[in-house]
Amino acid sequence: MIKDYYIGVDLGGTNIKFGIVSAKGEIIHKGLLPAQTHLGRDAILGNIIKAIEQTLALAKKNKINIGGIGVGSPGTVNLLTGKIEGSCPNLPQMLNVNLKKWLSVYFDSPIYADNDANVMALAEHKFGAAKGYRDVLCLTLGTGIGGGIILNGELFHGSDYAGAELGHMTICYEGRKCNCGGIGCLEMYASAPAIVKDTKELLLSNKKSIIHRLIKGDLNLLTTEIIFKAENKGDIFATEVINQACIYLGAGIASAVNLLNPQIVVVGGGVSQGGESFIRRIEKEVKRRAFPSATKNLKVVKAKLGNDAGFIGAAMLVKNPSPQGERAG
Amino acid sequence: MIKDYYIGVDLGGTNIKFGIVSAKGEIIHKGLLPAQTHLGRDAILGNIIKAIEQTLALAKKNKINIGGIGVGSPGTVNLLTGKIEGSCPNLPQMLNVNLKKWLSVYFDSPIYADNDANVMALAEHKFGAAKGYRDVLCLTLGTGIGGGIILNGELFHGSDYAGAELGHMTICYEGRKCNCGGIGCLEMYASAPAIVKDTKELLLSNKKSIIHRLIKGDLNLLTTEIIFKAENKGDIFATEVINQACIYLGAGIASAVNLLNPQIVVVGGGVSQGGESFIRRIEKEVKRRAFPSATKNLKVVKAKLGNDAGFIGAAMLVKNPSPQGERAG
Repeated sequence: MIKDYYIGVDLGGTNIKFGIVSAKGEIIHKGLLPAQTHLGRDAILGNIIKAIEQTLALAKKNKINIGGIGVGSPGTVNLLTGKIEGSCPNLPQMLNVNLKKWLSVYFDSPIYADNDANVMALAEHKFGAAKGYRDVLCLTLGTGIGGGIILNGELFHGSDYAGAELGHMTICYEGRKCNCGGIGCLEMYASAPAIVKDTKELLLSNKKSIIHRLIKGDLNLLTTEIIFKAENKGDIFATEVINQACIYLGAGIASAVNLLNPQIVVVGGGVSQGGESFIRRIEKEVKRRAFPSATKNLKVVKAKLGNDAGFIGAAMLVKNPSPQGERAG
Repeated sequence: MIKDYYIGVDLGGTNIKFGIVSAKGEIIHKGLLPAQTHLGRDAILGNIIKAIEQTLALAKKNKINIGGIGVGSPGTVNLLTGKIEGSCPNLPQMLNVNLKKWLSVYFDSPIYADNDANVMALAEHKFGAAKGYRDVLCLTLGTGIGGGIILNGELFHGSDYAGAELGHMTICYEGRKCNCGGIGCLEMYASAPAIVKDTKELLLSNKKSIIHRLIKGDLNLLTTEIIFKAENKGDIFATEVINQACIYLGAGIASAVNLLNPQIVVVGGGVSQGGESFIRRIEKEVKRRAFPSATKNLKVVKAKLGNDAGFIGAAMLVKNPSPQGERAG
């Protein structure tokens, strides 16, 4: 039997990404299933089970010994109990589900669960853009804005596992109302839906842009991908929209940098498809705003592991269980 | 000889507070000298020397064995080198001074230095409002807004000692320009000078308030103390001003709470003279804004050690040197 392999599952708003990962971060197998979140909690949980069963069967067939299963999920994952707590604005169906207990009913392997952005940070720290750094700030820009923090080489969770919520830093004290109940949260300004919504409104006010042509006049087709595509084709309006997003992100990240003074900021998630120029503009804005002593050695880089970061990091929960979770016994 | 006593020095914009503190936090002696910051760096340093010399003489006379000297200073204090780095917006005269090296020329005792808000947090954690808590966020509301963070029972500094700058969290991405070079920093809205400035402007626009009488029509006499006094006398305008400050503070603290998920927030410094009602309003605003999972067990309390926190914490640097400083050898 081959040892030291783990199953990682990354639960997202659209898909469940999963795979078998070695202790060294090699992907032995990977798969994807729709999460079917619109069908409710039981459907989501059924799909997670299906993903794990498929993967375990494949492991058995190939004589790969699975050391455990890790799951990354939106929301605050209580490492002590395994339950998804607090508010889970981007996947409310999962609120109060005890992932750890619930999966333990179906599978004999050790089960670990953590927040989705936390496991992404873990993966980037172990095998990606933050490898070798001690203090790391990770952001995932997508449907929501997630955050993961590595301090002293370990995932940081906070006293009730609710820390690292970078998407819910206030960037405007009297700003937009957030799904989390807060006010002026970064996520309301720089997540993919927020950027798309702002862009739609500007396009409706007759802004000149090749985006109109790219979406064939149908605003429902607008995505951040199309906005970045328009910028690549030299569209000035698209650049203005993206620069504004960088201002929002710079303000939120500068706050976090002034508080945590990390060595490196890693930007991942779908929106980071904007590429190097997008990352450089975020970096510029962070350095314009944050304390010079906190930015003099700071690096701002793009995530390396792409869509695989979630399940790789989830798998690594088995290998590197948090001391806070271990307390659970 | 009596052992286990330390000298603590708290350098502020107006005064140098200092004293002899026992390992158990008892104040054996305390004193105060004007910092004379307007006379420049050499005068400030001379006054620090004077404070320490006075205290050492007194210790000698009373046969108190001094184990070392700790100094709290505004700015980013590099624990490795002892130098005040980066921007030091509220006491720029001290920028690039190497406090540790410089005091070592004059005194044989071991010398330690750290940021003033950090040592305040250390004192409140060891002997004050945060005693017994593992994860703590401290704010000092005064001329500036300082921050100190305790994580896992230890002072947190960040990778370049520049962390915990709570006064420089962005609460408004396109807001007021800050002395630190940033934009929309909390300090520009909720420090004593910011509150006084906003209040003056409102009073000039003929707002009805007993403050006009309390300051005998001379706006130069306005202080946060007078605003709180007016509120205590039932002045509605004063309450509006203070509530607005609580909104600013709530936004900044909520960001930090969503990032760090501490167990307790300790509010100290001159402005916290507002008392229990002020603290409760800040708490209410934090809980309205931050993640429910991050606030369900969160306490927001007033600092206990008042003006002594700075020199008590500075003294404790000798007893509890940071591992990050110890690397310096």
